[in-house]
Amino acid sequence: MTTLTARSSVRPVLMKGNEAMAEAAIQAGCDAYFGYPITPQAELLEWMARRMPEEGRVFVQAESELAAINMGLGAAATGARVLVSSSSPGISLMAEAMSYMAGSELPLVLINVMRGGPGLGSIGPSQSDYFQAVKGHGHGDYRVPVLAPSSIAEAVDLVASAFEIAERYRTPTMLLADGVMGQAMEPVVPVYRTLARVTPGWALTGADGRPARVVRSLHLLPEELERHNRHLQAKYSTIEEREVRWAGERLEDAEIAIVAYGTAARVARTAIDRAREQGLAVGLFRPITLWPFPSEALAALAPKLRAILVVELSAGQMVEDVRLAVAGRSPVLFHGRTGGIVPTPGEVVDALRRTWDLADAPQIGAT
Amino acid sequence: MTTLTARSSVRPVLMKGNEAMAEAAIQAGCDAYFGYPITPQAELLEWMARRMPEEGRVFVQAESELAAINMGLGAAATGARVLVSSSSPGISLMAEAMSYMAGSELPLVLINVMRGGPGLGSIGPSQSDYFQAVKGHGHGDYRVPVLAPSSIAEAVDLVASAFEIAERYRTPTMLLADGVMGQAMEPVVPVYRTLARVTPGWALTGADGRPARVVRSLHLLPEELERHNRHLQAKYSTIEEREVRWAGERLEDAEIAIVAYGTAARVARTAIDRAREQGLAVGLFRPITLWPFPSEALAALAPKLRAILVVELSAGQMVEDVRLAVAGRSPVLFHGRTGGIVPTPGEVVDALRRTWDLADAPQIGAT
Amino acid sequence: MTTLTARSSVRPVLMKGNEAMAEAAIQAGCDAYFGYPITPQAELLEWMARRMPEEGRVFVQAESELAAINMGLGAAATGARVLVSSSSPGISLMAEAMSYMAGSELPLVLINVMRGGPGLGSIGPSQSDYFQAVKGHGHGDYRVPVLAPSSIAEAVDLVASAFEIAERYRTPTMLLADGVMGQAMEPVVPVYRTLARVTPGWALTGADGRPARVVRSLHLLPEELERHNRHLQAKYSTIEEREVRWAGERLEDAEIAIVAYGTAARVARTAIDRAREQGLAVGLFRPITLWPFPSEALAALAPKLRAILVVELSAGQMVEDVRLAVAGRSPVLFHGRTGGIVPTPGEVVDALRRTWDLADAPQIGAT
Amino acid sequence: MTTLTARSSVRPVLMKGNEAMAEAAIQAGCDAYFGYPITPQAELLEWMARRMPEEGRVFVQAESELAAINMGLGAAATGARVLVSSSSPGISLMAEAMSYMAGSELPLVLINVMRGGPGLGSIGPSQSDYFQAVKGHGHGDYRVPVLAPSSIAEAVDLVASAFEIAERYRTPTMLLADGVMGQAMEPVVPVYRTLARVTPGWALTGADGRPARVVRSLHLLPEELERHNRHLQAKYSTIEEREVRWAGERLEDAEIAIVAYGTAARVARTAIDRAREQGLAVGLFRPITLWPFPSEALAALAPKLRAILVVELSAGQMVEDVRLAVAGRSPVLFHGRTGGIVPTPGEVVDALRRTWDLADAPQIGAT
Repeated sequence: MTTLTARSSVRPVLMKGNEAMAEAAIQAGCDAYFGYPITPQAELLEWMARRMPEEGRVFVQAESELAAINMGLGAAATGARVLVSSSSPGISLMAEAMSYMAGSELPLVLINVMRGGPGLGSIGPSQSDYFQAVKGHGHGDYRVPVLAPSSIAEAVDLVASAFEIAERYRTPTMLLADGVMGQAMEPVVPVYRTLARVTPGWALTGADGRPARVVRSLHLLPEELERHNRHLQAKYSTIEEREVRWAGERLEDAEIAIVAYGTAARVARTAIDRAREQGLAVGLFRPITLWPFPSEALAALAPKLRAILVVELSAGQMVEDVRLAVAGRSPVLFHGRTGGIVPTPGEVVDALRRTWDLADAPQIGAT
Repeated sequence: MTTLTARSSVRPVLMKGNEAMAEAAIQAGCDAYFGYPITPQAELLEWMARRMPEEGRVFVQAESELAAINMGLGAAATGARVLVSSSSPGISLMAEAMSYMAGSELPLVLINVMRGGPGLGSIGPSQSDYFQAVKGHGHGDYRVPVLAPSSIAEAVDLVASAFEIAERYRTPTMLLADGVMGQAMEPVVPVYRTLARVTPGWALTGADGRPARVVRSLHLLPEELERHNRHLQAKYSTIEEREVRWAGERLEDAEIAIVAYGTAARVARTAIDRAREQGLAVGLFRPITLWPFPSEALAALAPKLRAILVVELSAGQMVEDVRLAVAGRSPVLFHGRTGGIVPTPGEVVDALRRTWDLADAPQIGAT
Repeated sequence: MTTLTARSSVRPVLMKGNEAMAEAAIQAGCDAYFGYPITPQAELLEWMARRMPEEGRVFVQAESELAAINMGLGAAATGARVLVSSSSPGISLMAEAMSYMAGSELPLVLINVMRGGPGLGSIGPSQSDYFQAVKGHGHGDYRVPVLAPSSIAEAVDLVASAFEIAERYRTPTMLLADGVMGQAMEPVVPVYRTLARVTPGWALTGADGRPARVVRSLHLLPEELERHNRHLQAKYSTIEEREVRWAGERLEDAEIAIVAYGTAARVARTAIDRAREQGLAVGLFRPITLWPFPSEALAALAPKLRAILVVELSAGQMVEDVRLAVAGRSPVLFHGRTGGIVPTPGEVVDALRRTWDLADAPQIGAT
Repeated sequence: MTTLTARSSVRPVLMKGNEAMAEAAIQAGCDAYFGYPITPQAELLEWMARRMPEEGRVFVQAESELAAINMGLGAAATGARVLVSSSSPGISLMAEAMSYMAGSELPLVLINVMRGGPGLGSIGPSQSDYFQAVKGHGHGDYRVPVLAPSSIAEAVDLVASAFEIAERYRTPTMLLADGVMGQAMEPVVPVYRTLARVTPGWALTGADGRPARVVRSLHLLPEELERHNRHLQAKYSTIEEREVRWAGERLEDAEIAIVAYGTAARVARTAIDRAREQGLAVGLFRPITLWPFPSEALAALAPKLRAILVVELSAGQMVEDVRLAVAGRSPVLFHGRTGGIVPTPGEVVDALRRTWDLADAPQIGAT
């Protein structure tokens, strides 16, 4: 059950993405926030620092990102609705706890406002933590639902969705935004979704008058741990069946599709407009969930296309999932920029033209 | 330049994998070891605790895995040959520092003796950190060479190779072993490779009488960081060209290939023997480098096969890289166990038989 | 300005000392609590964990005692009324931050529910952190007001006094309780003092529309640091003049005075009753502030006495301050138990008798 | 058994105090050093960083002062001869571990090169950690022998003495130096004492072929902990009997004695020369051990004096121990500077003259 909540008025308000995501979490019923300052995510923490106490909820600036995520783990174990946020290096410090929460089936929303890496890198926007988000951040066989907004309004909505998914499936869930999404200002209609509150039956609320509950990721007997893993894998299959989200634009007659998410999708949209003006039949396939990846939809689309162009703010990471989905049914090319640089629409048009020409050539392969 | 060193005699000595890898690192000229105890990797740390001081070298049991890898980073920056080891949860704590070392181009060898996950999991053997090792452990666009031994003798050799690769390309390098590889005892011929020592020109050795050097992953200007990323990507391409290693067994006439590494490959070998006895033409494709993955060799092999069966001690991770490589040229099936359980040869024979039957069916797809 | 607050009724309620101190802090207007569990202080943290969120205030179980006190420091810098509590080993971890707060002139109340030491020691009650509390916990020339309650009702009152002193003088202030004070249950009349709230002019509340403020303990120029130290010393002199508290019982005709605080004073009271029955004219001098120590009052009393007997749950610590005050004007003897053992009244009567006999002897010295 | 060792020659070498103390520790047979950089102690760590590996011994720059002292604790438990050093704020972080080592009876030498406090303070020289060193750094009833050198040559000798005392009594031992002692350069005759090595019977060396040993500070039964405390107190009494050290200068005919240690004693010596020229009969009483404090010697001296002047680089800390020892037998006055400022000889002569005049007045008291 979801309630739409308008804060003060429904006239659009100019907000930074970081602020809008923070307020969306508050309106969704976030009970506790834990974080540690890092650019370009700082305004999110600042917003929570001011607003959470106003709402009588918990805000803690922890000793480090490691402390923040483990406080989040602890709070989540009590049934609290928890948000943690950081940017790339800080997210890396959370790998162990994310694996623990996946194993312990604890819901929590983690927002990564990505910056250029590796290492300290730069504070410019980036999408170079895609692999980390959807593949192998922590150890062990687990998956994390990953939502990737492409506008601030969508980010507001996906924050609520992230809490819904986290709680529906008892899983840590990630919202993957890049620095542009965090720093840019856009008009946001202040209508938020408020999520119903159901105290989960597994939460550690103090065992007064009932048997004690246990939340843990430890299963010392291999048979027991395998049973637990089968349960987790079944859950991940359900998520893959039910929670895939993507958006298509101008795909009906497209001969080339750009696959892009987040800020890259916004650039792609402008590039597609220009390419269409130049007579190229181009459309946009925009994954909204990065895991589960919209593989089936893309696999179904691929045979109708002359080629696919993947655009990322990275050296090429989602392109691997595109190739996996397409499985040779269409050539897949890539254009990316790194280090905090956003590709320009002009660059993407050029890449589209090269893709068009290559697709014309008979010998093109699938790599 | 490599020197072969025989320790006391060349008669085989019975050693645990953890001990053999530790001694191999010492013989390879490891200057400093940093770690923190965790099962099933503990004997490696114990061996180093005893042997490194005997050799007048540095052993530190750090405050945590986080401290250990960062001490490793610092020591590597001085040009020291550094080994760090842990098991799954401890490796997760090292994600940030691995990204920093990749960005700073610091050589270091990290051994992961994998156990069942996610979270605390069990202390049984596992291969469920494959994704973490080859994809997205830390943030940012970087890659880490990953070597996967399938016998203790091979582990001894690959420890030296890992140092060679780390230093040749100035990159952190991983040796991915599972708990069986760490705990099992096998006869090891105590012949080790000793690596030549060349003080690297970039090492922070104190700037007496020369200009100061800088080792860093920070590049605040996006253009500069992109230039740095291009340099890294070019290096990764070179590694992909030159450092791929794999081994094939009985593939000449094989209609089905098992793809497996580490302990799974050993189980597969026994299963293949039995399947051959039952008339199934089965061979083994064993990746030794997991990144760079032997994609080209596998892509070339795929069209000759009726099907590929991937066997892992996981819920299915390397299978994704196999599918990426095969790109639809052959059906790819999977058999895995999780939670610290090793598949039996009998199970694998059954899986082979199912694969054989499925491959016979006309409608089989590539997923 | 202080308001008396009755919670629900004024009939006595049976409470543990830890609980009563916690509630007293809440009623006094404590905005934020930071702590980490340790026996015998655990119920204080548990009470705060439950009650602070009920009041819409901040409760954080930090990563460690080190994190807790530094969070306290940060919160205090914003003008919040902050309580931190722990027991002996945890208090030791707070030495650096206490010195920083003294140097930065930040008010904060720290409760130490002492247990037997040194090291891990036992979880039994103790007074063996007297030296730490009143002398040299952290580095540098600073003093900390220390209040020592001897009943739960007094503890309730002194918690409010501790906040008053902390804020009046901008200084961290300590409430020193032993494990008996924390664990024992006594009827508490639920009347609490609520302290007026004045936002301090130095607090870091965000520099909107006013010049930025600075809170720091760093003064790099020695002249500046000395000026700062003179200011601190002048403040400590003022506290010594104005804030000394002690209580005397049956001292009018006493020939021997027991000097004791906290639980030791309660035992002494019973022993004095018994000794009086046996004809010994004995009274009790009970310091309530340990720093500033009631030296003048004791110095004035000493010449009238045949001897002083100091009773502590320690190997002898406050006895040093007694000797300093008495400066040879009366013999000072000592009786103490350690390790979590509370002296019995019988033991103290025996010690009184020995003191009486020694004082009769003409040769007795001042040590 | 002690061996004198001359390094290369016996001609004086110009060394900083920090360097000389470091080399003295190495020559005394220090096996392991743990530290973290802080001014004005940095050269000590730097010297160890270079020299310990040359000697094939252990040097670790830890993650923090907390990690350093706990590594020291661990190494000491194996029977290693361990040095840890820091400056005031870093020493505060070591309070808990010092209490643990006292409780566990582990020998270790800790050097504090004091700087101005409280808090971050300044990096100028200071003696304001006297209380911390001799009274209440950590929790519980324990004492730490504290040696205070007044010249670099004496520091060299006292480093060896500190190891001797630490090992003879199984106790952490402190060497208390101020920033002047650490930073000043003086000619040092490179003759060092090398201490005999006896593997202690309690050391945790691996329980091969013998029953396991235990090193701990935990004694859960109060009776057992009290027995342990009695043992510790008996040991402290022995140290008080046997290890007191002090030096007197020109005390034979002195009517006023300056009591000062470390750098303050050096200033006092110059002031005494000048005061003697002006006809004042002044001498120097210089404690070398601060705990045990030379109370008996001072108590014996006091009645012969008109007054005592205590000079410290602090707001007045040792003066308390002087008053305790003197117990009213002589007036005790104080002159101190704080914040990194060293009193000048001129200031001290003025203070002496004021003392002289006050002592002439009939009404002077003992405070």
